[in-house]
Amino acid sequence: MIVLLQKGAPQDQVDTVINVIEKRGMQPVNMPGEENIAIGITSFISPEVRYPLADTLLALPGVFHVVHVSRPYKLASREFHKVQTVVKVRGVEIGGPNCVVIAGPCAVESEEQIYESARVVKAAGAKLLRGGAFKPRTSPYSFQGLQQEGLDLLKQVGRDIDIATVTEVVDPNDVETVCAYVDMLQIGARNMQNFALLIAAGRSGHPVLLKRGPSATLDEYLNAAEYLLHHGASNVVLCERGVHPLDRTYTRNTLDINAIPVLKDISHLPVIADPSHGIGHAKFVPNIARAAIAAGADGVIIEVHPCPQEAMSDGQQSLTPDAFGTLMHSLKRVAASVDRTVD
Amino acid sequence: MIVLLQKGAPQDQVDTVINVIEKRGMQPVNMPGEENIAIGITSFISPEVRYPLADTLLALPGVFHVVHVSRPYKLASREFHKVQTVVKVRGVEIGGPNCVVIAGPCAVESEEQIYESARVVKAAGAKLLRGGAFKPRTSPYSFQGLQQEGLDLLKQVGRDIDIATVTEVVDPNDVETVCAYVDMLQIGARNMQNFALLIAAGRSGHPVLLKRGPSATLDEYLNAAEYLLHHGASNVVLCERGVHPLDRTYTRNTLDINAIPVLKDISHLPVIADPSHGIGHAKFVPNIARAAIAAGADGVIIEVHPCPQEAMSDGQQSLTPDAFGTLMHSLKRVAASVDRTVD
Amino acid sequence: MIVLLQKGAPQDQVDTVINVIEKRGMQPVNMPGEENIAIGITSFISPEVRYPLADTLLALPGVFHVVHVSRPYKLASREFHKVQTVVKVRGVEIGGPNCVVIAGPCAVESEEQIYESARVVKAAGAKLLRGGAFKPRTSPYSFQGLQQEGLDLLKQVGRDIDIATVTEVVDPNDVETVCAYVDMLQIGARNMQNFALLIAAGRSGHPVLLKRGPSATLDEYLNAAEYLLHHGASNVVLCERGVHPLDRTYTRNTLDINAIPVLKDISHLPVIADPSHGIGHAKFVPNIARAAIAAGADGVIIEVHPCPQEAMSDGQQSLTPDAFGTLMHSLKRVAASVDRTVD
Amino acid sequence: MIVLLQKGAPQDQVDTVINVIEKRGMQPVNMPGEENIAIGITSFISPEVRYPLADTLLALPGVFHVVHVSRPYKLASREFHKVQTVVKVRGVEIGGPNCVVIAGPCAVESEEQIYESARVVKAAGAKLLRGGAFKPRTSPYSFQGLQQEGLDLLKQVGRDIDIATVTEVVDPNDVETVCAYVDMLQIGARNMQNFALLIAAGRSGHPVLLKRGPSATLDEYLNAAEYLLHHGASNVVLCERGVHPLDRTYTRNTLDINAIPVLKDISHLPVIADPSHGIGHAKFVPNIARAAIAAGADGVIIEVHPCPQEAMSDGQQSLTPDAFGTLMHSLKRVAASVDRTVD
Repeated sequence: MIVLLQKGAPQDQVDTVINVIEKRGMQPVNMPGEENIAIGITSFISPEVRYPLADTLLALPGVFHVVHVSRPYKLASREFHKVQTVVKVRGVEIGGPNCVVIAGPCAVESEEQIYESARVVKAAGAKLLRGGAFKPRTSPYSFQGLQQEGLDLLKQVGRDIDIATVTEVVDPNDVETVCAYVDMLQIGARNMQNFALLIAAGRSGHPVLLKRGPSATLDEYLNAAEYLLHHGASNVVLCERGVHPLDRTYTRNTLDINAIPVLKDISHLPVIADPSHGIGHAKFVPNIARAAIAAGADGVIIEVHPCPQEAMSDGQQSLTPDAFGTLMHSLKRVAASVDRTVD
Repeated sequence: MIVLLQKGAPQDQVDTVINVIEKRGMQPVNMPGEENIAIGITSFISPEVRYPLADTLLALPGVFHVVHVSRPYKLASREFHKVQTVVKVRGVEIGGPNCVVIAGPCAVESEEQIYESARVVKAAGAKLLRGGAFKPRTSPYSFQGLQQEGLDLLKQVGRDIDIATVTEVVDPNDVETVCAYVDMLQIGARNMQNFALLIAAGRSGHPVLLKRGPSATLDEYLNAAEYLLHHGASNVVLCERGVHPLDRTYTRNTLDINAIPVLKDISHLPVIADPSHGIGHAKFVPNIARAAIAAGADGVIIEVHPCPQEAMSDGQQSLTPDAFGTLMHSLKRVAASVDRTVD
Repeated sequence: MIVLLQKGAPQDQVDTVINVIEKRGMQPVNMPGEENIAIGITSFISPEVRYPLADTLLALPGVFHVVHVSRPYKLASREFHKVQTVVKVRGVEIGGPNCVVIAGPCAVESEEQIYESARVVKAAGAKLLRGGAFKPRTSPYSFQGLQQEGLDLLKQVGRDIDIATVTEVVDPNDVETVCAYVDMLQIGARNMQNFALLIAAGRSGHPVLLKRGPSATLDEYLNAAEYLLHHGASNVVLCERGVHPLDRTYTRNTLDINAIPVLKDISHLPVIADPSHGIGHAKFVPNIARAAIAAGADGVIIEVHPCPQEAMSDGQQSLTPDAFGTLMHSLKRVAASVDRTVD
Repeated sequence: MIVLLQKGAPQDQVDTVINVIEKRGMQPVNMPGEENIAIGITSFISPEVRYPLADTLLALPGVFHVVHVSRPYKLASREFHKVQTVVKVRGVEIGGPNCVVIAGPCAVESEEQIYESARVVKAAGAKLLRGGAFKPRTSPYSFQGLQQEGLDLLKQVGRDIDIATVTEVVDPNDVETVCAYVDMLQIGARNMQNFALLIAAGRSGHPVLLKRGPSATLDEYLNAAEYLLHHGASNVVLCERGVHPLDRTYTRNTLDINAIPVLKDISHLPVIADPSHGIGHAKFVPNIARAAIAAGADGVIIEVHPCPQEAMSDGQQSLTPDAFGTLMHSLKRVAASVDRTVD
């Protein structure tokens, strides 16, 4: 950590900073310089101490900036955990050499719809079935999901079709219940910093798919993952799903392709991409799915619906079963070109 | 609502769109044109129908865009509710001619700190005391608030110093409890689309201060307010607190000053601003608070701490009691210049 | 074009809009509706008329929005030019089945450096050599390029090593000169809306590589291309190079991978990507280059320097010759996986 | 400047960094630490050296970040020039206690229009007349300004009505000519990093109004001002005109109100605001103009047209003469409330 004071800050301001650091048993290094005054801390500062300390230092007179020179998280950081994490969800490995495809409808709408979805995505090679029971929607007048009935259907279809399942949870109250019905919890983009939900999901010990928020920096994102890990989760998968776009004339979001190799570099957690939300139009989803795999993603999550034009939500970005089948063939080829598989 | 089909879309695609609209008892107007094909709906479309309908239309072959020509919300819209809403919180009116100042520390830290805060902000003219008991923090290692103890202190200080209180709630489970301790609930920026929380807060019937999320469009924001109103809240105050900035070299966020007059125009709800989070440095908070009042805000919420350099959070953006007193004088003058008061 | 008037707009405001449209010989369609009042224009509106007309309509009382339902450009649009354009630069085809790699240093620094660069990129399979003579730099104190000397070197190296060349032009005055020295002009991101430069470049008739500005919407971008085409250019290549990022902790920009398939869909111009500026760190450039090809780009432009740590600019994002060689092998494989080549 | 190397960087990488610094006659301070390795430079580093040095250091193996701890500009910085600059344009002082209002139409359209504009804005209290002769427009089919004829009219009207004039210049070729016709040059937002234009404008010695680009950070912006100052300008006025918005449903841009007090703090140059482009709708311009003055701006620039609905550009954001008169009265009151004047 480096504390910057304004040029010409009086000595007592400098001394105060140094005292604050020393009182915590850390070693300050004073770099007076001809520019500003920089005071570095050379000791290791654990994340537990870093933030309160930065808060304290920033409020001292004369201090105008605190530079974090190491990552502000620990459990999610590759610095402290060199080995790539491979998450296991009902026997499916995410983060290993094989790129995992998760697929299914935006929402569970009926028994027929979810069974048909499960059959087609499994047949095409998807390893997990997605499907929302609790749907966070921008408007209170949009379809909000089948809720408990959706959970029931997910449990049945996961068992009957023999496919692992993932669904979004939106209320800390529901975490325990949802864990009883599906194999993996999803925390959605809008809830990335819903800390009450992160804590509840972490405590459950269940695998978690954590989507990145639309204006979250990577440090904010990994801090959200740190909440999960700190509270007990060990199987966390990151998912880039698009940041707020410059405009929405042609796309719904801007998938941040850069985030994929950077997250793989700074964190040991598996990283997948969500091209369906990332671009928002079925026509372009295959291009972005291929790009994600080529960029190094450990998998993708794709919205597929037996009949997109009858979907109760996200129809415009859902692939038909045929289009999904074609995409799967294509992803196998792209994966092979970067020495991965899609099996 | 206007549905746009690609130029050259075959007649059966056009017919399908028209059928979908007519089946719902609405009146389509076909505008074939030499450019694209536009199909307008001239009937009134209630928000309850608008979103499902748009979802359906967007998934039809040939359709590439659906333009909402009226606001996608109803209860929050001035179109349907011409009269300015004046929210009452323990006798304090927000949204009337008087601009209300809410002030206090980021977090409740101790009995002494919150009593001292309440005294100084009340003496300077603030009408509500803010103070966090549950603190949503980017890092799990930061101070998370005193929680129940914080609520106890807020209840006592509100009674003893006779000042209305507002505090953030972060978990739907806590809504009922928090309502018993403070006069107004706050939904924070990170939870603006935490719909489970919005529903719980709406159902409580308690006054709610709803902050805008850092990348929320105004339509997304007013839809969040619509959740509150739809589920039972009648006293909702909007609060612009800054959107994600171009960079953080000099400021924490970018207060969206434009949002103030626009929200006042399109919604009947009171609109206040949060200059403390909006810019993030105590030195500049007064400038932004003055700007907000001059732009037409119904009030401001300001972080004030008896001793900012000892604050457990947000010290760098908290005003000292003296600076707050000076700001209050200044705000009275600015308010008078736009025919408002700060009393 | 659809003109929206506020609900309850008086009849004379509606009539004014209708008159303005009819006076221009176009056909208005009035859609009074119960929501807002929409007036559609069903006639074809040429781009020459569209903007002045929209300007006029927007200033009429009661009008609050004008929706462009067809693309606001013509020459750059696939709607009016179905066939994919293949740009030819000294025999190299860009936009055909082969993905073209442009490579070379950020700036021409010396004879030795540019000859060495040309040799290594050509040997590895690059078809064009890039190298800046005029360098637009954020600070006036940064290296500004060798200017005329740089042009001389580019001409020589292009001839001696037999490789086509591209360099940035920053001043309309220089366009004619630069055309005499290199095979293709580049318009940089910061100059995407430098219309004086676009006009001069268009008039030259020389091939142009047009980079997208860091906050340009795709419509603004294609309008910039429209300037080039309207003023005489026929060989224009688009280049996505990254939009302004959420933060710069880990990357310099955010390469907008979505823009690649969307631009390919709405325009007939070739589209390449610039992973070097798009992410800004050499370590991650290969991932993003692969992603761009997988997403459907017609090529990539890569910064390569014989010795990046001695580069006078952009060293941190320049590949070594070895890393570039490795990347080329990898790109061939990825291209093959999407039925393209890199030859 | 602080150079950060990855934890565990081998000693030879550290030595290389130290050598590079020492070879330039500067003093490195090694802070090995348990986190990363930080090497500080305590000597003063002139801006002329800073950027080349940072470029060099960033390209060294092991280096992942260079932190600039002092401002990357000098002539524009208050650090090196404590006294507030007051720019004089034909007797009008910008940057002193009086807030200056610049007003006039987007474009010069005719003799009658510009004379009428000049009369009404002068009568209402504006000190400078704006009016575009060269109009940078998104589309090549939009009105591009009267060009030389516009300059002629500006010269005449400035003389006949006795009001100082400002107009945009878009081509380095035109700078000398434009200086002969108007009192102040404007560099528009799209050209903020058109360095050829900045250099030409700087060399002219004429007063310059420099608008901030829509995605420019404040450091990028002040570096653009540094170009002007470095090349000979001494009378430079900064102008915040709005950054790229989250969406354009309700506003054209997002005026960055935070930039006003921050720029006043870090630079000695006068700072004005452009509410017309900043929000883009005439109805809301007064609110934002008042906010700018309350935030500490040294003035505002306002689009006014004798008949906005007949304007050839920007009609929707232009005030009528009456609305402008009302605004001027209001601005006087707001200015007084912050101890400024609008005279």
